[in-house]
Amino acid sequence: MLTSLNIKSSIHDYVVHFVDDASKTIQQNIGAGDLVIIDSVLTDTFQFSDTVTVISIDASEHQKDFNHLGPIIEKIFASNIRRQNKLVAIGGGITQDITGFISSILMRGIRWDFYPTTLLAQADSCIGGKTSINFGHSKNRLGNFYPPHQIFIDVSLLQTLPNSAVRSGIGEMCHYFLIDGTSSFDVFTRLYPLVLKSDSNALRTLIRHSLSIKKVFIELDEFDTGKRLILNYGHSFGHAIETVSNYTVPHGIAVCFGMDIANFISLGLGFLPERSYDEIHRVLVDIRTDFVLPSFELAEFISALKNDKKNTDNNLNLVLTRGIGEMFLQKIAPDKRFLTRLEQYFLSLS
Amino acid sequence: MLTSLNIKSSIHDYVVHFVDDASKTIQQNIGAGDLVIIDSVLTDTFQFSDTVTVISIDASEHQKDFNHLGPIIEKIFASNIRRQNKLVAIGGGITQDITGFISSILMRGIRWDFYPTTLLAQADSCIGGKTSINFGHSKNRLGNFYPPHQIFIDVSLLQTLPNSAVRSGIGEMCHYFLIDGTSSFDVFTRLYPLVLKSDSNALRTLIRHSLSIKKVFIELDEFDTGKRLILNYGHSFGHAIETVSNYTVPHGIAVCFGMDIANFISLGLGFLPERSYDEIHRVLVDIRTDFVLPSFELAEFISALKNDKKNTDNNLNLVLTRGIGEMFLQKIAPDKRFLTRLEQYFLSLS
Repeated sequence: MLTSLNIKSSIHDYVVHFVDDASKTIQQNIGAGDLVIIDSVLTDTFQFSDTVTVISIDASEHQKDFNHLGPIIEKIFASNIRRQNKLVAIGGGITQDITGFISSILMRGIRWDFYPTTLLAQADSCIGGKTSINFGHSKNRLGNFYPPHQIFIDVSLLQTLPNSAVRSGIGEMCHYFLIDGTSSFDVFTRLYPLVLKSDSNALRTLIRHSLSIKKVFIELDEFDTGKRLILNYGHSFGHAIETVSNYTVPHGIAVCFGMDIANFISLGLGFLPERSYDEIHRVLVDIRTDFVLPSFELAEFISALKNDKKNTDNNLNLVLTRGIGEMFLQKIAPDKRFLTRLEQYFLSLS
Repeated sequence: MLTSLNIKSSIHDYVVHFVDDASKTIQQNIGAGDLVIIDSVLTDTFQFSDTVTVISIDASEHQKDFNHLGPIIEKIFASNIRRQNKLVAIGGGITQDITGFISSILMRGIRWDFYPTTLLAQADSCIGGKTSINFGHSKNRLGNFYPPHQIFIDVSLLQTLPNSAVRSGIGEMCHYFLIDGTSSFDVFTRLYPLVLKSDSNALRTLIRHSLSIKKVFIELDEFDTGKRLILNYGHSFGHAIETVSNYTVPHGIAVCFGMDIANFISLGLGFLPERSYDEIHRVLVDIRTDFVLPSFELAEFISALKNDKKNTDNNLNLVLTRGIGEMFLQKIAPDKRFLTRLEQYFLSLS
């Protein structure tokens, strides 16, 4: 298997390296004057030279609020960072968002490298260049596009992941394989049960394959104005589930439910044949297993859906499907018929 | 004269329109749901429809601090802005910086238009895409590249400018003509005395010509990593003057002194012939007239120079010159010889 993947970007091209020993790679790739931003739970996992400033952060939704970034930026300026230095992020998606966003606005953009340490970050968010910052109740409504210059993926960092995090990562990866088509989805259905049994080769293959699928979309439509919107499959509904559950549902599990809802709506509108619906549904249920959604009101769910930043008018901009590999954008009015169908879906879960 | 100028950008191409009546253009180009950010001193100059949210800001260095942007962003989210809406900036460079920066990070980048109302903004900062944000004592050390989608220049808005602001704008424009070459500089020396006599046609010609020169550099090197650095001519020294004077010296006047210093250093190092030095010096003195720099210590000046974000190591990255149209980048060690030469310059002023 190739050990790297090149991504083209109008901001700057970048590379994903698959490595076997992140600790060693970090030693080799961080120079004097560079600055590490690391999730505080990982601080004891890696060693750094004295010439490197290390900022340990609380990788929480609270910390990634625009109004809470000031103290981190203050520490960066206090380090006397220079233009030729780089920031290095070690952690999951929140550490990525914070480091990527700050790198993009520091002296109008400096270099940054990323060592993703969660399955979601390794298999999905590390490429694509999106940064997401909260502003009070407006979650992820600030941000920009600024990819890392290098990404180093070491799957051995995932060995201690709890089962729920593995299932969440598998849920997110599943959406790439469903979008790509039946032959990819066949690879996925063969490999993900091995991943659940801690097979690290299967895991690395799935991660690499997910990133390869995503690469095609982000290179075609870096700024998410056309083709890339298809990757939103399962995500509008998934984000709404995260919102109404106050983020207690893991992201990839929410996306599993989100794809299931998109398929259920597609079935109801006559787009998706029942057989395809059933085939995908079985896999999605197997991934999420016995996960039970917390209770919420349908009105809250609709309100969260309407608030999605992808909507451009009073309709919902959704991704529906005619089958595996056949997703498409569709404007849907949040009318009574739509609400009834959603209600049916949630009743079917109980 | 052409009434528009197109600028190519890897972020998005954009257009400068020269218009005769900004008030009317604003009426025609702002739609329901759009949001205006306007320098509070201009609030009574323009009228807006009730469907437009107007945020009046204190266009100060204090307001442009990262830690003071929160309340403006809060008002924007409170307006329920949608992706297809745009922000509209009306004001000078600070209003531009604030609106451009916020537009770049709002939902990963939304449309914005700019109506520059100062000579510096019309003749220089409105194109190039740079945004500059302060962070405490770190002035302009945050920011990014995010040009407006449209710029509307109405020179009649400058009719009430005080003489010092006109001279400051002329100083900034002068640097473009000096960089471009002798035939451009001849146009400049013929027209700027007319501008000082309030000739609005001459003013419009100089503004358009300045922007045309700048356009070539920013299209060649949008992100300021090569050719565009030449535009920094007079600016490293100028910024240091602004710093040590606590920003009491108008920007373009500081740039006038800055170019004079760059030329004086170039003369001392044998790059610039004395005759060229004298020719340019006469014009720079005529522009700044009797402006007297406040007193400061040479050590403060050096410290400000060293702090320039363009420096990549312990040397200063300066733009020196061999004559009109012959500027070049030069690394200079801030050694005793350099300090002595600077001291000579400042002593020559008194």
